[in-house]
Amino acid sequence: MRYKIIISYDGSNFSGFQKQDNSRTIQGELELACEKVVKHKVITHPSGRTDAKVHAKGQVVHFDADIEISAFDMRDALNSTLPDDIFVRTCSRVSEDFHSRYNAKEKEYEYLINVGEYNPLLRNYVLQYCRPLDVEKMEKAIKYLEGEHNFLSFATKIGDEDKNAVREITNTMIKTTGTRISIRVRGTGFLRHMVRGIVGTLVLVGSGKIEPEEMQTILQAKNRSKAGPNADGCGLYLLNVKY
Amino acid sequence: MRYKIIISYDGSNFSGFQKQDNSRTIQGELELACEKVVKHKVITHPSGRTDAKVHAKGQVVHFDADIEISAFDMRDALNSTLPDDIFVRTCSRVSEDFHSRYNAKEKEYEYLINVGEYNPLLRNYVLQYCRPLDVEKMEKAIKYLEGEHNFLSFATKIGDEDKNAVREITNTMIKTTGTRISIRVRGTGFLRHMVRGIVGTLVLVGSGKIEPEEMQTILQAKNRSKAGPNADGCGLYLLNVKY
Repeated sequence: MRYKIIISYDGSNFSGFQKQDNSRTIQGELELACEKVVKHKVITHPSGRTDAKVHAKGQVVHFDADIEISAFDMRDALNSTLPDDIFVRTCSRVSEDFHSRYNAKEKEYEYLINVGEYNPLLRNYVLQYCRPLDVEKMEKAIKYLEGEHNFLSFATKIGDEDKNAVREITNTMIKTTGTRISIRVRGTGFLRHMVRGIVGTLVLVGSGKIEPEEMQTILQAKNRSKAGPNADGCGLYLLNVKY
Repeated sequence: MRYKIIISYDGSNFSGFQKQDNSRTIQGELELACEKVVKHKVITHPSGRTDAKVHAKGQVVHFDADIEISAFDMRDALNSTLPDDIFVRTCSRVSEDFHSRYNAKEKEYEYLINVGEYNPLLRNYVLQYCRPLDVEKMEKAIKYLEGEHNFLSFATKIGDEDKNAVREITNTMIKTTGTRISIRVRGTGFLRHMVRGIVGTLVLVGSGKIEPEEMQTILQAKNRSKAGPNADGCGLYLLNVKY
């Protein structure tokens, strides 16, 4: 029996999604809870790993269980077992064909930047830039990234990815609410650290260090050293995954 | 030389404002930072203590220092010394007459309730009620509290306060934004746990357990056992103090 769960979590006190010895991880806590509920070993498969400190409002995970529980009971049982920084929003039973990662068609991320006074209440939830940023320039710059491109310049290479670093960004949106800037990026797939690399580069644009047009040059260079640094993980949210 | 600082803090990882042995407190961290800056023992005086988990966006504190530093430099020095969950928003030099507690004329608190799905990202920042509340009834109920009253029914007694439990609530406001309810209470002074007692009672009203009109009966009883339980500290924010 395969279960698909949509979860939200506060990444602040986790060393990321992926299970690690001696570190608190989302996968570690999830599997511990699943195993308590189903009484056998469980492996959880996310739509994609999130880094340390990164949050999720709609991460999708699947796992197999030998016992048959209703989706409703599974959700309840997991939520009463999980720690208070992970929450199962919905649970459904899916066919064995469903795979949270391989079947994902589109993902949406949000990145939050505080351009106002330092706010201790948001220290784990936004990039505390605390100086003005030229949002118009950032909007101009991000538009160069829409469409299908090789995004090597914004990603941390894991292996030989030069040939398969082409991804499609289907939509972007930058919105300012008071002193908060929200950057949304939707795409068919993302390389490792890609959103954080993009945001780090947008901050360079917004602060006037580089011109919006340079986004194109950076993209074409396919060279990580041409782009800005990765923006802090704590400002990043995985919003949803489409199948 | 007396300094007045306006500070914001995330109360999540503190056992409240007041200094305690073996517990992390706002006063403890503040005095540690002040002493590092001015190189002598410092006692900090808040406009009022906040409980464990309670946050502040505009707490006012004064302290005396033997050395003379500009307000600007004092703010910078404190902010570079303080941990990241306390922030000095403004600093000014004031006369020896100024007292953060005795001179306070009015305070404003905000209390946040989540009536939507449990949100792990807000677990330290709102009351996670996660069910609907009848805000119209709550608005009707809170109006009974405006004006000068004896608020013993909503406060935790410390000593013989029966005679001086009269306080004035000058303004109240309840606002709903999506699944978030914000309750604002402004008054000339507050008894211990008073806002949390009021909010706990308003939740009883909003959930239909008691009628709005009972607020008056509870108020007149001057008996803590007549009102609802204290709402969680984590949903409470000290917004500002007027002098």
